[in-house]
This record gives sequence, structure tokens and C-alpha cells, in this order.
Amino acid sequence: MRPSKRAADEMRKVSFERGVARYAEGSCLVRFGDTQVLCAASLEDKPPPWLRGQGRGWVTAEYAMLPRATLTRSRRESSTGRVSGRTQEIQRLIGRSLRAVVDLPKLGERQITIDCDVLQADGGTRTASITGAWIALRDCVQWMVQRSILKDSVIKDHVAAVSCGIVAGEAALDLDYAEDSNAETDANFVMTGRGGLVEVQGSAEGAPFSEAELLKMLALARGGIDTLVAMQKAAIG
Amino acid sequence: MRPSKRAADEMRKVSFERGVARYAEGSCLVRFGDTQVLCAASLEDKPPPWLRGQGRGWVTAEYAMLPRATLTRSRRESSTGRVSGRTQEIQRLIGRSLRAVVDLPKLGERQITIDCDVLQADGGTRTASITGAWIALRDCVQWMVQRSILKDSVIKDHVAAVSCGIVAGEAALDLDYAEDSNAETDANFVMTGRGGLVEVQGSAEGAPFSEAELLKMLALARGGIDTLVAMQKAAIG
Amino acid sequence: MRPSKRAADEMRKVSFERGVARYAEGSCLVRFGDTQVLCAASLEDKPPPWLRGQGRGWVTAEYAMLPRATLTRSRRESSTGRVSGRTQEIQRLIGRSLRAVVDLPKLGERQITIDCDVLQADGGTRTASITGAWIALRDCVQWMVQRSILKDSVIKDHVAAVSCGIVAGEAALDLDYAEDSNAETDANFVMTGRGGLVEVQGSAEGAPFSEAELLKMLALARGGIDTLVAMQKAAIG
Amino acid sequence: MRPSKRAADEMRKVSFERGVARYAEGSCLVRFGDTQVLCAASLEDKPPPWLRGQGRGWVTAEYAMLPRATLTRSRRESSTGRVSGRTQEIQRLIGRSLRAVVDLPKLGERQITIDCDVLQADGGTRTASITGAWIALRDCVQWMVQRSILKDSVIKDHVAAVSCGIVAGEAALDLDYAEDSNAETDANFVMTGRGGLVEVQGSAEGAPFSEAELLKMLALARGGIDTLVAMQKAAIG
Amino acid sequence: MRPSKRAADEMRKVSFERGVARYAEGSCLVRFGDTQVLCAASLEDKPPPWLRGQGRGWVTAEYAMLPRATLTRSRRESSTGRVSGRTQEIQRLIGRSLRAVVDLPKLGERQITIDCDVLQADGGTRTASITGAWIALRDCVQWMVQRSILKDSVIKDHVAAVSCGIVAGEAALDLDYAEDSNAETDANFVMTGRGGLVEVQGSAEGAPFSEAELLKMLALARGGIDTLVAMQKAAIG
Amino acid sequence: MRPSKRAADEMRKVSFERGVARYAEGSCLVRFGDTQVLCAASLEDKPPPWLRGQGRGWVTAEYAMLPRATLTRSRRESSTGRVSGRTQEIQRLIGRSLRAVVDLPKLGERQITIDCDVLQADGGTRTASITGAWIALRDCVQWMVQRSILKDSVIKDHVAAVSCGIVAGEAALDLDYAEDSNAETDANFVMTGRGGLVEVQGSAEGAPFSEAELLKMLALARGGIDTLVAMQKAAIG
Repeated sequence: MRPSKRAADEMRKVSFERGVARYAEGSCLVRFGDTQVLCAASLEDKPPPWLRGQGRGWVTAEYAMLPRATLTRSRRESSTGRVSGRTQEIQRLIGRSLRAVVDLPKLGERQITIDCDVLQADGGTRTASITGAWIALRDCVQWMVQRSILKDSVIKDHVAAVSCGIVAGEAALDLDYAEDSNAETDANFVMTGRGGLVEVQGSAEGAPFSEAELLKMLALARGGIDTLVAMQKAAIG
Repeated sequence: MRPSKRAADEMRKVSFERGVARYAEGSCLVRFGDTQVLCAASLEDKPPPWLRGQGRGWVTAEYAMLPRATLTRSRRESSTGRVSGRTQEIQRLIGRSLRAVVDLPKLGERQITIDCDVLQADGGTRTASITGAWIALRDCVQWMVQRSILKDSVIKDHVAAVSCGIVAGEAALDLDYAEDSNAETDANFVMTGRGGLVEVQGSAEGAPFSEAELLKMLALARGGIDTLVAMQKAAIG
Repeated sequence: MRPSKRAADEMRKVSFERGVARYAEGSCLVRFGDTQVLCAASLEDKPPPWLRGQGRGWVTAEYAMLPRATLTRSRRESSTGRVSGRTQEIQRLIGRSLRAVVDLPKLGERQITIDCDVLQADGGTRTASITGAWIALRDCVQWMVQRSILKDSVIKDHVAAVSCGIVAGEAALDLDYAEDSNAETDANFVMTGRGGLVEVQGSAEGAPFSEAELLKMLALARGGIDTLVAMQKAAIG
Repeated sequence: MRPSKRAADEMRKVSFERGVARYAEGSCLVRFGDTQVLCAASLEDKPPPWLRGQGRGWVTAEYAMLPRATLTRSRRESSTGRVSGRTQEIQRLIGRSLRAVVDLPKLGERQITIDCDVLQADGGTRTASITGAWIALRDCVQWMVQRSILKDSVIKDHVAAVSCGIVAGEAALDLDYAEDSNAETDANFVMTGRGGLVEVQGSAEGAPFSEAELLKMLALARGGIDTLVAMQKAAIG
Repeated sequence: MRPSKRAADEMRKVSFERGVARYAEGSCLVRFGDTQVLCAASLEDKPPPWLRGQGRGWVTAEYAMLPRATLTRSRRESSTGRVSGRTQEIQRLIGRSLRAVVDLPKLGERQITIDCDVLQADGGTRTASITGAWIALRDCVQWMVQRSILKDSVIKDHVAAVSCGIVAGEAALDLDYAEDSNAETDANFVMTGRGGLVEVQGSAEGAPFSEAELLKMLALARGGIDTLVAMQKAAIG
Repeated sequence: MRPSKRAADEMRKVSFERGVARYAEGSCLVRFGDTQVLCAASLEDKPPPWLRGQGRGWVTAEYAMLPRATLTRSRRESSTGRVSGRTQEIQRLIGRSLRAVVDLPKLGERQITIDCDVLQADGGTRTASITGAWIALRDCVQWMVQRSILKDSVIKDHVAAVSCGIVAGEAALDLDYAEDSNAETDANFVMTGRGGLVEVQGSAEGAPFSEAELLKMLALARGGIDTLVAMQKAAIG
């Protein structure tokens, strides 16, 4: 039995609140249970310096947690003066995941940055970020289409993400913090709306895991991501 | 006529939402019109290193803006690697303002940090921060009293803050961004519930200002702060 | 009775020594009692990057203390790798104060930087800096006029500054370190030669202060600044 | 046909040279084709600060590339002042992989750091690092056993790693730089000597990948890692 | 003929002004012509962390230039966030030079830091710094003796320094900036009062130099340092 | 008797291994006994920014040690975020030494960077670096000549370096770590193939040294450098 009484294949309550950031070109407050991430898309009229003159655009992401998003306060990365390895890993993952479903040449010489700021963290902040960031990105692209900056959408598919784990020997979907900190194996899956894999990241925290366990987690993730994509469709519908 | 149609002595719509940060010992989402600041109090069981062994506690504040809190995106201070002068000025101001109404010896060898994270910025973020931080601090102290960490409250008075300015030759209360960026003089006032002055900061942005103008702004501020203190009382009622 | 035996409205011995920095376009060693600040103006032929192409110039300031300007040695900010919040607050204040009396469009696309390096610190370093920086700036502008870089002066008025405080319940002018560290309230005033207010910054260090106390300090400051402006006039005479 | 003429399941020439770092407690120069990594183990008599007093040890890794390990020179991270996200990702991966096969409580309050310095980079530097680091770690542990610092080895199993990819639609083992930069999907697998999975990291660089492709890459990796473990056994034999 | 009309073996006008820094335990404003360095000694009651418990003291130095000490303004190292290689070289040189004449075990577990701040720079700032720092250090030690912190002086000898160069094919003593920037070879010599060599640093800026030229510069330096030591003796007389 | 049983004027076993860095335009692994430095030359098609448009090229060097090149592990400068003073001194020395024998105008608007990475350190790393860097630089220039980037070589002479010291009262050549850490005086000499002096750096570590001792060390160095230059000639022969 999971601490949250959820079934092994049951996600937490998920919601998307669009347009929460008044000044952003697209935004979404995404909730996976008690995890809350504010995703805001910002359009810039030029690509990053290393991409100038190549006729392509770029989509990138930044990720941060408010100091008291968590059980105990953590120091701000602005005051430590360093972006931690964990933060960099996560923002690189979000960026890659989004770019997998964007037609970058069609975007033209522009950059869209998605800021994912975790207001509250109860596990799964990176998967919630990816799932919510897609909404913010999509609304930003719509904003551009409405203003004729783009003729039509440059988004090729949905993208969403969910975590799985082996907890007390059983595979489980969408871990919250209580489960995550006790999981033997922790995995994150990113998939497109059509079911293609974008990222698979599995780590043994204790004992190694087997191929069978990897496949069980993958099956759970597929179910979870189907649900998330359906909810994204409803949210933008 | 002000761009917002408000009277010279009229504040924007102010609201306090308590308990928004699930893990913090006290928290408050404060809104001054479109300005939104999430204030979260974190208790630590020891004072800062430079205060060890002196039998006194400390209250401090940190301040930051989400990158897209503003009209155009600003870079994260974690990625520039530097906390800007503006940020440091503001967080020092918030800290001093709160300490003015706390009995630090009675707090004992502990530290309370109030994080003020601006979710949306439409002028007056530092004054909203101070006013909301007081609620978060007060709730944190109540949390301590309820758990018998403190016998009774260490908060001696309310503290609240408001900005004023000289705009198009006229004194006005609680400037929003549109007014603030056109003001000839910009001033911030911090006062206690009993009407004592804690901070007065006035700057000529264009032409110098006169003593009469300073006094006019001070009178407007006094009215605004009376309102804010009454609202704080209602919020914690 | 003040520790220095001065009357409440009596300034310390003030002096200006012009031309102390051989290579600078303007310079002044200012003394407020034992406080000594070396102010040096440097002209650059282009404005800061964010002001290019707008037909206006800029005046800015940097402030630092020698490590042993003070009673006990403080670490260099170059070796800590960070400019402290206090330093940034002060250099922003000096810059704003000087710009209040300069015709920036008339200065043209140039920048003048005033370096204020505190050789010895006995309280009031920021007010001495502003007062001495005005001389360095003025001499730099004269240097430009003499070389026909400017047709005539771009300085619209004098600017000078002084601190006041409430010490042992009494308002006092131009605090030295002994008074400053015991003051209940500490305030800095910046005014022009014609008596306009440029900056007012008052902080309660202990109990809040009243409007009456603010006005008493303002009156003392006005007297002190009148004296300082007269001395500036004599110095450049 | 692969650019290197290798079969899909064929690794590059792999070699281990032990004892190359005269002063290190264990060391190994590992070569995967033209990729060369110098792995050196350093023993410290105390654990990292956050682990003090818990009766457990720690194994960690640092990773860097010589500036001219690559086709074009890259800037030193010491001169940029920042450890890049990529570097941090890799060193965290190496550390986790090694810890998966070490009995940390039995290691006692000590830390072993494995420095992985890439002398030459032709793809697969992180997988070569993990595979070579295991030898350096094992030799360090033997060094401790020989000096009776440990009664017997704290290493529970081998660990080795290899990359796979989907290149031109086909799964291939142990990509070199030429393949890696053209792969549609790139995956790294870390496994123990007994075949358990420690890390699986797959990323779509272009089009998403299918579950079938993931499984094909996993099968190739299993074969490669079996070979690497056999070679580790021979090397320490 | 030298630009300054000096003879090849003629130093610039040198002076020492003791006690210029009111709060320092010892201080000296040293002038070598237009080069001016403020040297201030600060006593700390404990040695640096890496020397604790070894029964010895330490003498160290820090060196900096005011931004407008030079012909054109240079950026502050606090705002670049990095201490330059040149600055570090110089402060290490000053520290080594002073330690060569101090009995560190006799100093006991204490540290003396000499801050050398260049107010004006016309060549030879490092040699002026060493020569003036000796006075500040000596006065600090006297201060300690007067307060019975030390029984008697821990200074074993004088130390002083001077630069030489090969300019237009001729050896010359104590180069000013005009000569220094045109010298083919540039050398700095540090010697004790008894004539022992502490540091010799010669660099070819253009063509290599010969042993004969090195010896010519050394002879000039010996004459200059004899003069400097005699002046130090007179100054502390 | 020296710890290594070498005669006072006897160098350690020296070797040069050319072409060790597959991607570099020139490279050399130099060994002075157990000291090993990997020197790699990188050609860039433009000079550093401050030299643009002056028709001249530049040669510079970077120096680093692997963390476990030494007896005990040292922290990476990338993770401390600062390049140490010692590192900066050494890389500036290597760069100056190489530039002394290069015709920079003839090199044209290009930059060659020599990375000197110490794989193993047993004293004399800076002198080994200079001596090996010359080979890497020379091979890079040959590479350019072969590709007609340069008509003929821009290298005017050999350059090589060696350390000397006064150990137990005797002058000795090419100190290893055991001697170096006990030397009373430590000196580094850089000379050209024709015997001209490029750099002389002598430091008293304990008692001052005499002119006679300096000359004895210089004579030893001359012998050592003659040997090194002959070996460089053989290596490139």
C-alpha cells in the first residue's frame, strides 16, 4: 500500500492553470498533487549568440525552486553564486524535452525561454515542469500566430513526463516525496503525444534493477503520460 | 488624473492570503493590485554565526523576482552569479523594517528568515514585501507559541510600508509601475502600527523636491499605512 | 553633550584639497574630521553600453574603503569576490546625487566616473564622498571646457550631503563614528545649492522616530549643507 | 556500415594500464579506442562534512577534460570560473555508479575521490571513465587492505559502462565521436558484474525512439559490458 | 640621457611619512618620485588557519591600486570579481620579502598583514611597496613591544627593494613609468640591510640579456638599496 | 650528497615524446625524472581581442596540475572557482618565455596557446613546462609551414629552463621535490639556445643568498640548459 493510498498506476491530482503570469507570452501553473510549478514562456526576437545566422530558432528552459518550496529551507543559488549540478541537469532535461517537439527551423531566428519556478515541491518537480512547460510554450506559440509572427504552429506534438520508481519491491507511478526518498530505483520518462520516447533516465538508489523492472516502470509511465496528454488537450481545448 | 483613475490618496486593491506555503512556519501571498509577493518564514534553531552566544535572535529577509515577473524577462541572479545592488538594498530594507518591531533578546538564539519572492511586479514590490512579510513573520511566531517554543509573542507592533511619489507635480499614494517610471520623486515609507517612522527613503528622479512635498508624501503614506495595518489586523483576526 | 564636545548643529572641521590625483581629470581629498575620502574623476569618451546612441552622457560613482581605513581591518572586496550590499547602496547613492545636478544631454555621449576611496573612516563616509565628489566632478568638467570638449559647464548646481541622528534623545549634525554607533536614528540628507532635496534616507536603529524628529534633523541638515556649499564655493573660487 | 568498419555489436579496442599515477592510492589509464582517461583514486581519512558522525564512508568522482583533448580547444573551467552543467552531470553519474557497488558503512568514516581526467576524447568519455574508475577504486581498496586499514574489500561487484545509439536507423554499440554526433538517439548504460542495471540514460537527439529500439540498445550494452567486466577481471587478475 | 635627466645610478626623490593611518598599528606613506603607496600594518591575534598550533606567526601582504592611480582608469578588482595575476604576483613578492627578515617563531601565533595601496603609480610600485611596508611592519612591531605583547623586536634586518632596467642599451636604476614601458629588460631586486639577496627577478621584454647586464643591474641595485636602507634608518631614527 | 645521488651539476633523466595529443597542432610529453607535463599547442585564426588590427600574433600559455599529480590531492581550480596566484605566475612565465623567441609580427594575426598540464609533479614543473612547450610550439609552427599558412618558421631560437637551488649550503641543478622543499634558495633560469637570459627568478626561502651563490646557480643552469637545448635538437631532428 502506498503512503498516499494510491494504486500503483494512479497519478496524483493534476491540474493546469493557464495565463497566470500577466506579462508572459504564455504561462501555466501546473500542480501534481502538492507539487506546484509556475511555467512562464518569454519570447526573444533573436536566437542565442552561438546560433546566429543559421536560420533556426531555439527553445530553452531555466529551473529553480523557491527557498522554502521544501520541508526545510534551502539557500538561494543567487547567494551561493553557483547553479547546482542538480539544477543544471534538470533545466537541460526540460529544454531537450521541449525541443524534441518543436520545428526549430520553422520558428526562425528567435528564442523562447521557459522559466519553471517551483513554488512548492513534493516530488516530481522535473516531470511536472516538463508537462506544464509544454502548455506555456504552446500558448506562447499561439500568441505568435495570433500576431502573425508565425504563420502556423511550430509545435509538432505534445510532450509530457512522469516519474516511476521501485518502492518496497513494487513499481509505482508518479512518486511523491515520501515515496521518492525511499525508492530503491527512481526513473523519469518523457514521451510525446504519439508515444515516442524522448528521455529515459533510470537510477538505482540502492540495489541494481532488472530489465523486467525497467519495463514495468515504462508501462506505468506510458499510462501516466497518456493521461497527462489527454489533460493537456482538455486544458488548451 | 492618475492612469489608474485612483484618487491621490487611494491605494490599490490590497489582499493577504495566509498559509499559502505548505511547509513554511508562516506564509502570506500579498497583492497590491497586480503586484504579487509570496512571503515565507523559515525558523532556524540557531542565530547567524556572528551572533552566537549573545542570547539574542535575528530576523532577516531575502528578496528576489521571478525572471518573468516583469514586462520583459530579466536574467536570474543565480546565473549572473551576482546579487544586484537593487536586490541587496531591498532585502536589507525589509530585514531592518521587521527587526524594528521584534524583541530580539526574547526571541532567543534563533533566526527567522523571510523569503519575499515577487511572482508579479507592477511597482511597489518592496513595500508589498514588507507588509506581507509581517504577516508571515507573525504567523511563524504564533506557530512557535503554539508549540511552546516561545512563551508569548515577540512581536511588539505591526509594521507596514507604502510608496509615494510626485507625479506630474502632484503627490500620489502607492504608485504602480506606470506612475513609478514617470515620477519626479519616489519615496518609500515604513511605519509601525502606532505611527512611528521606521524608514523614510526619498529620491529625486528628476528635479529636486521641497520640504513641503516631502511632508505631503508623508501625510499620504500615513493614511495608506493606517489602512494597511487595519487590513493586517483583519487578516490575522 | 556630544563626545566630541561639538554643539548639536556643529559640523566637524571640513576641508577640500583639490588636484591630489595627478592623472585624474579632476580630484579632491575631502576631510570631515578624521574621515578622509580621495575622490577622482575619470572621463571616458563613450557612455555605458546601455546608453549608446541616445545622445546623452552618464555620471556614475564607485566607492570603496581601504582595508585599514577602520578601527579593525576589513577584508578586501576583491578577495571576497563580492561587492557588499552596503558598498553598492553607497555607490548608487553617490551616483544619483551627482546626476541630479548634471545636464546629461548636454554632456553628450560620454561618461564620467567618480571613484571615492575612503582612506580613513570616522563616520559619514558617504556624505563626505558626495560632497567631495562634486568638486572632482566640477574640476573634470572645467578640464573639458578648457580643452573645448564642452562649450560650457554642464553642472547645474552644487550638491552636498550630511548625516544627522537622534543620539541620546537629541538631534545632532554630522555624526562621527562614536555617535553613529550609538544613534537611535540615523539619517542622511543630500541637497542642492539652491536648497532642493535630492535624497532623504532615515532609519530607526532602535525605537521608531517621529515626524517632529525627522523635521529637526532636516533643519540641522539644511544648516550643515549651507555651510558645505559655501565651502565648496570657496574651494573652487 | 559504421564509419569505423566495426560490427554493430563490436566495441573499440579497450585497454587498462594500472598504476600510472605514482602518488595515487590506485590509478588506471583507460582507453576506449582514441578516448583516453586517467583515473586516480585519493583516500581521505574523513568523510565529507555532511556525513560526519554517521559511521559511513563516501565515494565521489570529479571529471574534467584537458583543453585540447578535443578537436578544437575548449576553455578551462578554472578560467571560466564555472563547472559546466555537462561536467557536473557526468561527475555525478560516475559517483553514483561507483557507490552502487561499494559497501559504504564497511568503508567507515573515510572518503575516496576518483579523479577522471580525459587526456583525449573521441566519444564515450563518461562510460570509459566509469569503467576505468572502477579499477582505480579497486586498487585503492586493495592498498587499504594491504595496510590493514580495511580488513577486507568493501567492493561488492564490478561496475562498467558503455554507450549505444541509433545511427542511421540502426542500433550500434560504443559510439565514437563521428557516430555520436550523428546519432538520432544516444544512450548510456551502467551495469554491475552480475548484470544488474545501475543507470539507464537514453535521449532522443532528433526523432523520438521506440521501446523496441531501447531494448535493442540495452541488449547491445549488455554484451559490451560483459566484455568490459571480463577485461577488468583480466586486468586485476 | 634618461627622460627624467637622472644619472644612470640616481634614484628618484624618496620619502617616508610615518603614522598616516590613524587606526593601523603601523603605517607609512612612501613616495618614489610620483609613485605613492600607503602601507598599513594590521595585527591579528591568531595566525592563518593553516598555521594554527605550530607556535609560529605569519606576515603577509595585500596590494592594490586605486582605479585612477594610473594614466587611464583601470577597473576595480572587486567589480571584476577576480584578483589579477599581476596583483597576486606582487602581493606574494611583498610577503616573501618581509618574512625574510622576521623571526616568525618569536612572533608567536599572530599574523601581521601589510596592506599596500597604491595612491599614484609612476613605475616601481612593487619596490616602493616593499620598502615602505618594512617601515609599517617595524612600527607595528614597536607598538607590540611598547604594549609588552612582544619582549623585543622580531625584526632581524632591514629589507628594501628597487627596480633596474636596460633602457636603450644602458643599465639604469629605479625606472619610472616612461622608462619602464620602453625597457628591453626589467629587473627587481630585494635585499636586506646587510646586503643579502632576498629576491632577484629579471625579465627580457625584448631581446635576451647577458650575464654582464644582469651584473650591471645588480650593482646599481646594491647602490640604490644602500641608500634606501639609510633613509629607512633616518626615518625611524 | 643529493637524495637522488646525482652530482651537483647533473640533471634528472629528461625525455620528450612528440605528437602525443592526436588533435593538437603540436604536442609533447616532457619528463624531467618523475615530473611529467603534457604540452599541447592550439592554433587560433585570430589574435586576442586587445591585439586586433595590429598586424601581430600572440603566443600564450595555460598551466594546471591534475588534482593527484602530487603526493596529496589538491582541489581543482575549477571547483574553487579561482585560478591561484601560483598558477597565474607560472602561466605568465611560460608565455613570456616562449614569446621571447617568436617573431610575433611574422606570425600574423593569429594566436597559439600552449596548454601545459602536469600529469605528475616531482619538482621543476614550470621549467619542464617551458622546455616541453617549446617543442609543442615548434611542431605547431611546422604544421603551419607544411600547410602554407606560414612561409617559413617564426621561431627565432630555442628556449629552455631549469631550476637550481642552494641545498644544505651547496648549489645544485634541477631540484626534485625532496630537495626543493628543503632548499634555502630556489631559482629558475630561462635561456635561449644562443645563451641569452630570458628570465632569472631567485628567491631566498630561508637566509638571504649572496651574489656568489647567484652566479654559481647561473653557471649550473647554463650547463643544464645547454643539455636541454641539445636534447630538443635531437628530438625534432
